[in-house]
This record gives sequence, C-alpha cells and structure tokens, in this order.
Amino acid sequence: MADAQFDVVGVGNAIVDVIAQADNALIERLELSKGTMTLIESDEADRLYSEMGSGIETSGGSAANTLAGIASLGGRAAYIGKVRDDQLGGVFSHDIKAAGVDYRLRAATEGPTTARCLIFVTPDADRTMQTYLGVSVMLGSDDIDPEAIGNAQITYLEGYLFDREEAKEAFVKAAELAHAAGRKVALSLSDPFCVDRHRASFQHLVEGHIDILFANHDEITSLYETDSFDDAVGQLVGKVELAAVTRGAEGSVIVTSSEVVEIPAEAVEKVVDTTGAGDLYAAGVLFGLTQGYELDVAGRIGSICAGEVISHYGARPETSLAALVKEKLG
Amino acid sequence: MADAQFDVVGVGNAIVDVIAQADNALIERLELSKGTMTLIESDEADRLYSEMGSGIETSGGSAANTLAGIASLGGRAAYIGKVRDDQLGGVFSHDIKAAGVDYRLRAATEGPTTARCLIFVTPDADRTMQTYLGVSVMLGSDDIDPEAIGNAQITYLEGYLFDREEAKEAFVKAAELAHAAGRKVALSLSDPFCVDRHRASFQHLVEGHIDILFANHDEITSLYETDSFDDAVGQLVGKVELAAVTRGAEGSVIVTSSEVVEIPAEAVEKVVDTTGAGDLYAAGVLFGLTQGYELDVAGRIGSICAGEVISHYGARPETSLAALVKEKLG
Repeated sequence: MADAQFDVVGVGNAIVDVIAQADNALIERLELSKGTMTLIESDEADRLYSEMGSGIETSGGSAANTLAGIASLGGRAAYIGKVRDDQLGGVFSHDIKAAGVDYRLRAATEGPTTARCLIFVTPDADRTMQTYLGVSVMLGSDDIDPEAIGNAQITYLEGYLFDREEAKEAFVKAAELAHAAGRKVALSLSDPFCVDRHRASFQHLVEGHIDILFANHDEITSLYETDSFDDAVGQLVGKVELAAVTRGAEGSVIVTSSEVVEIPAEAVEKVVDTTGAGDLYAAGVLFGLTQGYELDVAGRIGSICAGEVISHYGARPETSLAALVKEKLG
Repeated sequence: MADAQFDVVGVGNAIVDVIAQADNALIERLELSKGTMTLIESDEADRLYSEMGSGIETSGGSAANTLAGIASLGGRAAYIGKVRDDQLGGVFSHDIKAAGVDYRLRAATEGPTTARCLIFVTPDADRTMQTYLGVSVMLGSDDIDPEAIGNAQITYLEGYLFDREEAKEAFVKAAELAHAAGRKVALSLSDPFCVDRHRASFQHLVEGHIDILFANHDEITSLYETDSFDDAVGQLVGKVELAAVTRGAEGSVIVTSSEVVEIPAEAVEKVVDTTGAGDLYAAGVLFGLTQGYELDVAGRIGSICAGEVISHYGARPETSLAALVKEKLG
C-alpha cells in the first residue's frame, strides 16, 4: 500500500475539551457516572460548566486525538469532522492543522455550536466526560471525502459518531469507499455505554465492514454481552483481521486469527489525566501497522504514546512522539 | 480596614491566553520581541495564530491572574474587566468566578471580540506575548463600580490598561474613589515597553495616586530612564508608601521609606512557563499586606505563589495556594 497519500484518514466528532480538576465529592453531587462518557444537551452543558472549576480548553475528539498522535509519530494523517465557524471551531481547526494533520472540512456557517466535552479529572487521574455534541454530529455522507478515503492505507472510524443516524450512514459509506479502493477500515468502539446504545449496529458494522478493531475490556464484553474477556475475544476472531484490546494498567493484547500478542503498559512516573489513553494507543498501533512493523512493535509504540498522554492534562501529545519512540525503542 | 467587604478589587484587561510551545527559531522567523508583550491588531493575531503550534486556551489577564491568586490564598477578591458575549468571553467569566472571584461586569453585547494573548513559550520557559486587546480596552469610567472600590482594602490597577485613553481616565476615577473611601491604591507597571509608551502618564499616576507599586527591574529603570536599579528605587521612595520590585531568579525587594526587605526566590524543581510570575507574586504580597503580615512574610508568600505558577503552563494557580503557603511557612 505504499502508493497511498495518507497512512490514516480519521472520521470522528470534532470536539474541544474543557478540562478541570474535580474531587470525588463533586462527581457525586453532580450525579455523574465516573469514568464514562455521557451525552448532554446544551442546557445541561451550561449547568454543569457553571459547577465546574476553572479549566483549560484544548482540542479533543477521539479520532482527532488519534490522528494528531499519528502525525506526531511522523505518519501522514488526514481528518474529517465538523465544527462551526465560532471561536472554539477556530481553536479546533487551528490545532489539528498545527499538529500536521490534513483537515478536510470547512466550518459550518449555521447550525449548533462546535462540540464541547466537559472533562472532570479526579485525583486518581480518571476522567468523567460530559459531551455536548453540537454541530459535530451533523456530519453526514456528503462530508465523506472519497478522494481522502481512497488515498489512505487505513480509514479509521470513531464509534462515538454512531450516536446519530446520519453518521452511521456516513460510516458505511466511508467503509465501502475504502474497501472499493483496496484499503483497510478500522473502528474504535469508544465507550461501553456507546456500545450498549448501538449494540446491533456495531455488531453488524464489525462483521460486515471492519478489518481492524480497537476496544477496551468493557467495550468488547458489552459488544458480545458476556462477562468473559476471553469469550468476547474468541467471538471477534475471524470476524475482523486484527483486534487490539486495551486493559488499562495491565497493558493490551493484539489478536489475529493466527496470533495473540500481549503488550505491557508503559511505565509512567505519575499518571495525571487518563483522557486520550485509548486514542493515543490506537495512534501508535495504526502508525506501526502502516509502517509495516511486527505486531509486538506496533503494540509497544501504542503503549509509549498512551504513556505520554496520561502524564499530563489533555488528550493530545505535548512532545514529539517520533522522538519519544526513537528514544524508547532505541 | 477590617470593615472592608473585599481584600482586593482589581481592574485590568480581561484576556484569554492561547499558549503553545515554540522554539527560538520560530520566534526569530516571526520577528517577535522575545520575553516581552507586544500589542497586535486582529489581522496580525490571525496571522500569528496560523503560525503557532497546537495550543491550550486558559484564562489570563495580568490583574485577573493576581485576583485568582488572592482568592486561592483565601482572600476576598473582586474583578472589573470587560469581555464580549462570545465563547472565549464565556470561558473567561466562568474561570474567574470558578476561582472564587466576585466578577463585577456583564459581557458586552457588541463591539470587538474578547481579548486574546498568544503566548509562545520557549524551552527556556520564557514567554513571548502577542496581545489582541479586543473589547477589553473598551473599559471606561462608567465600568468602575464605586461600591466595589469603596469596599475593598486595596484597589489594584493593571498597567497594561494604560494603552487606551478611556482606560487611563477609568484608572484615575478608581484611584480617586478608593482614596475618598480611605482605601489604598496599588499599580503594576506590567511591561517595560508599556512603561515606555506611557512614561509621563505613569509618572504622574505614581506620584499622585499610587500607594503600592509593583514592578520588575526593567520597568522601574524604564520609568525613571536610568540604568541603575538603586537609582530607580531611590527615586520611588517617598513617592509611594511601598514598592515591591521583582528581579527574576534573584527574588525581590520590598522598599518603604523606612525599610528595605530582600526576599529570595522560591526554589522550583523545573521552571516550565514563566507566564504569570509577576502576577502571582503580586497576589501573595497583596494578600500578605491585607492580612497584616510583616513585609518579609508578605514577600515570601509572593515568592511561593510565583514559584507555583512557573512550574506549569498557564498563568493561574493549579493548586490551592492557601494549602501550599501553609505547607511552606509551617
């Protein structure tokens, strides 16, 4: 696939994160579901924001974080996701371009505002996310750029987009375009509640359209409604070419029909904020796969990238991942 | 002055900071004046932003940072500064209230956008600031809240506001209201170039209206057009009751007509970003003075606060300064 213009093109919700420290008492008082992502409406976003501490704003969005990571690793990345022509939309567009990612969409001139995710980071470095999707979910089939999809080794789809019907159609269109061009399609399941909301659709998508699947323990057990990790992984084998499943501090496992590769987590001096850990793990694995590395090396690059992003606030790398990987892999 | 509702009320430019890492080569290529603050117009802000790396947005503004610091120390703080009813204005308003500061102004419904400061942080932790003042300088005499000024032990004025004639008038009005209520007036000189642009006005203000002056080495030598620090300090004595002058890593000196108190800088493990160092030093000193501490203790609190803010990106404290000071002073 060396003739591809891009290593990876991603499709996802274009979101600006608002990050503030919070104690567990606040999470309880606001009745938030700790450690998960909840969708909220505009009014609820305003109410929760007024209860939130002083914050920092930084570009986020699961697939966008992954693409920024791939670019930081030296990969060729493109991104499809929707913002409004407002101040936070300007921040998102700036940051993804500044990260070296080819940003394929123009800002919408009407409709809801740019999406925001209120992230409450507790002292245990866990993050509780409340997302107002705004204009990001207005992404539809027309926004899927056939030229970008056809020219990328891998098209990477963010499961969070599944929360709207038009986006599901856009997903299927992107997958079909990619396969028609002889490319691969990857999907991240994003969140156990997201999987729960759309289990049948996800199963259908995974079985019919996905070559590479990213998930964590809770997401794949939710997908196959089982308590057993091994059982869930067993059900995946044969349905996708490759599944990369993260297990937090226990590292990850990459499974194909012929191999099971266990990858340890990277040692991190102090875990500050776990936001983006899965996104950056995916960045490392996708980069590794598109560069033709063995699975254990691709997985290790994923661990290194995840280790960087959890050592500071925010879901985008703060240092050159290419340099970091070079230093760690020698 | 125990009957005051507030310890300190501040008047300043309400600004959202956009912070990105930069190397020295970028500073040179963009022809920026390293380590200083330059005023820019909207077009130039757009141009520089497009050249800037991926960033984080966080509330700033010199006096606003100081007030957030005072609130974090446990002081009673109020703030007067102008934003628009746009997304960044919402961020500023949220953050200053979330910091525990009584925010006295409503967002303007027309006029320029909320002010932005593009901050390029180089590997030496020095910051180069490019400020688009936007609606912040539309602050005029009518915005000066007599009730807040009359009910604060100290009214704190940010020198940067001097870049517009209406703001100068607002300053004088605030100083007169404070003195009429038997209160004190403090001023920070803000930037040697700012002093250079308005030397005569600053001298007039200092001599006629200011009780407490904050400055750094470059600012007071610029104010009195001398190369000698001692000469500049000598000229100040008698004109103000108290001058607190910072000297970077060499600490600070607090001077009155009867005392010269030298204060060491706080040891910091790793200096990340010096943005806000002077603002947070002022927070500590003002808090100390309003709580009736001796000058050496007030200065030490200033050093502790400055030490916290330079150990991370952004100009607002990330931890409880009250707890930090308690830990350090024992």
